[in-house]
Amino acid sequence: MLGNFSFHNPTKLYFGENSLEFLNEELPKYGKTVQLIYGGGSVKKNGLYDEIIDILKRNGKTVVEDSGVMPNPTVEKLREGVRIARENNVDFLLAVGGGSCCDYAKAVSVSVNCGEDPWEKYFIRFDEPDCEILPVGCVLTMAGTGSEMNGGSVITNHEQKLKIGHVFGDEVMPKFSILNPKYTMSLPKRQMVAGIYDIFNHICEQYFSGDDDNTSDYIAEALMKSVIRSSLVAVENPEDYEARSNIMWSATWALNTLISRGKSTDWMVHMLGQAAGAYTDATHGMTLSAVSLPYYRYIMPYGIKKFVRFAKEVWCVNPEGKSEEQIAAEGLEAMKDWMQKIGVALSLSQLGATEDMIEGIADATIILDGGYKVLSRDEVVEILKQSL
Amino acid sequence: MLGNFSFHNPTKLYFGENSLEFLNEELPKYGKTVQLIYGGGSVKKNGLYDEIIDILKRNGKTVVEDSGVMPNPTVEKLREGVRIARENNVDFLLAVGGGSCCDYAKAVSVSVNCGEDPWEKYFIRFDEPDCEILPVGCVLTMAGTGSEMNGGSVITNHEQKLKIGHVFGDEVMPKFSILNPKYTMSLPKRQMVAGIYDIFNHICEQYFSGDDDNTSDYIAEALMKSVIRSSLVAVENPEDYEARSNIMWSATWALNTLISRGKSTDWMVHMLGQAAGAYTDATHGMTLSAVSLPYYRYIMPYGIKKFVRFAKEVWCVNPEGKSEEQIAAEGLEAMKDWMQKIGVALSLSQLGATEDMIEGIADATIILDGGYKVLSRDEVVEILKQSL
Repeated sequence: MLGNFSFHNPTKLYFGENSLEFLNEELPKYGKTVQLIYGGGSVKKNGLYDEIIDILKRNGKTVVEDSGVMPNPTVEKLREGVRIARENNVDFLLAVGGGSCCDYAKAVSVSVNCGEDPWEKYFIRFDEPDCEILPVGCVLTMAGTGSEMNGGSVITNHEQKLKIGHVFGDEVMPKFSILNPKYTMSLPKRQMVAGIYDIFNHICEQYFSGDDDNTSDYIAEALMKSVIRSSLVAVENPEDYEARSNIMWSATWALNTLISRGKSTDWMVHMLGQAAGAYTDATHGMTLSAVSLPYYRYIMPYGIKKFVRFAKEVWCVNPEGKSEEQIAAEGLEAMKDWMQKIGVALSLSQLGATEDMIEGIADATIILDGGYKVLSRDEVVEILKQSL
Repeated sequence: MLGNFSFHNPTKLYFGENSLEFLNEELPKYGKTVQLIYGGGSVKKNGLYDEIIDILKRNGKTVVEDSGVMPNPTVEKLREGVRIARENNVDFLLAVGGGSCCDYAKAVSVSVNCGEDPWEKYFIRFDEPDCEILPVGCVLTMAGTGSEMNGGSVITNHEQKLKIGHVFGDEVMPKFSILNPKYTMSLPKRQMVAGIYDIFNHICEQYFSGDDDNTSDYIAEALMKSVIRSSLVAVENPEDYEARSNIMWSATWALNTLISRGKSTDWMVHMLGQAAGAYTDATHGMTLSAVSLPYYRYIMPYGIKKFVRFAKEVWCVNPEGKSEEQIAAEGLEAMKDWMQKIGVALSLSQLGATEDMIEGIADATIILDGGYKVLSRDEVVEILKQSL
């Protein structure tokens, strides 16, 4: 734990099969007009929408509808949400859905009382909010992004072919999040495993950086091991409550800043995946899985000690009689086997990307410097080619 | 992660060599009169007292002295602290020291505006606070109790020979805690290792209970492994900043409720140790280490699967060709080796306990039901005899 850092995460989590009840405890703390944010019709089909409307009504709230939040929320949708909030003098934003709905709610929350265009302010200039922030609550229906307990928000601009994330401070984190693993069971399997890989990669992004002996790395390994074990149960039986609950809880702790304390972090897989996502509009987790192995194989020599530790601690690779390179490579092979078993995308072409997109995706890839190797543009192109 | 639970931990942590600077950011949030809580003279000797007085003065605070907090804060001292706070209309309690100072500050915080005697109300009847709670901040100088990020407070009543802990809710948790690993370096080695064992046992108490596949258990193993690795470095070289920082950070996360989410917990080692502590006034961590192995050996058959997992995951015991009992026993032997290496007490007689105290300690031992075996009083006596 080298360096100076702070940790402050005031989001209150309610977890479990009966966690929705606690919405009744939280709602009285906020104003009368609630903007109800959700995606397509799935929350209507599974009855959650009706349950929540009922709780809101019983708590005397005026409900303002804001539906149609897409998997990668767009800047146009964000502007619409801000308009809805302003026109209705909304007091509280309640997001019901996956990470996209939470991300979107946070982006709306910092934009309602801000005069400027939010895309320019928050996603191009990365300004901090200097206006009143609306409070946000989340009812989570998909495990993956960790958005339920952090200040992150990713918005896509199709016109500019950009998908950019801004990690806001603790004042933008949801005031509370309700996590019921049962809600995640109605998801199609493909979305479940995309979420699982998203979780796993969040951990990798924070793990594959730095080489000190850091408590955060031990916790990262613990979360990876729990996700691996539970994901193998969940792909066999998506109704396994214990597995789904471990996955949901691990997702939250994988990206609420805990495992990045006292260390540097990488995030290049996200930069590559998000750039590819802006071109293909593919599911976030699948874009990450498609570029991960080519990226990690490429940077392995520059962070060999961590890749050896990863192989031994996470994948139980027996190191006896093997070189560091062999141990590390076996770790990545074990990771690939697991990715195949759970069924995530292993190439960008599976997601609709084509050779002619490579240069454009490379242009859209923001190059960060926290990992074991700062990539050149040529190296980005090379990794993307190997990901095709 | 079975069952329903919540997680809310609003304490803001500032960690690192420069973390004291952030006291300047926090102090303006609170009122003018600050009760400065500390123990003996060590913070005066190492200069920390002067630094803090200087910061308080520069922030325009009126300082009310409250020194002499002992390692096991007594009910008499608590009553004195409450009197000081009332007489001076104190607005804010700043604890500078180890867990005892934080525990004591929290006990004062819930008692100043409460009419009743705090011992009866909080430590005998376990009432919740129904009066205004004073805000508390901590500057931590010893790693161990986790008091810096939880609502726990342990108070000793020598007259009644009772040492009782009350875990208060999130409104009693410190508003902020400042964690500088350098401050822990001035401690005598014996206190350092007592703190290390306290941390390790906090994790064990939450780990050795339940048998589901739980993310919390993976995180518990991660914290144990980090503490074991760093403790062996720190006993060789107490000035190793990286080791001391990992220990300090692990201590906080070992007891801020994270690793008990979604599972049952034991806490019988603490019940036995605290009862022994009320008789011997020995350092908390040492009373825990003295009773741990006899207790775990005794309950091992009732939770054999977890003890096997402990042996394999935490101590890397090779399970090949061995029975579950052999694997589990080897795990506890490895734990004993580590305890010997770091130099914690392995018997109560080392701490001044004698045979004639056994019955009294057994009487003072509160028997809990969260572990693998609910002990009878005879079993408590047996375990205490084996701990002598």
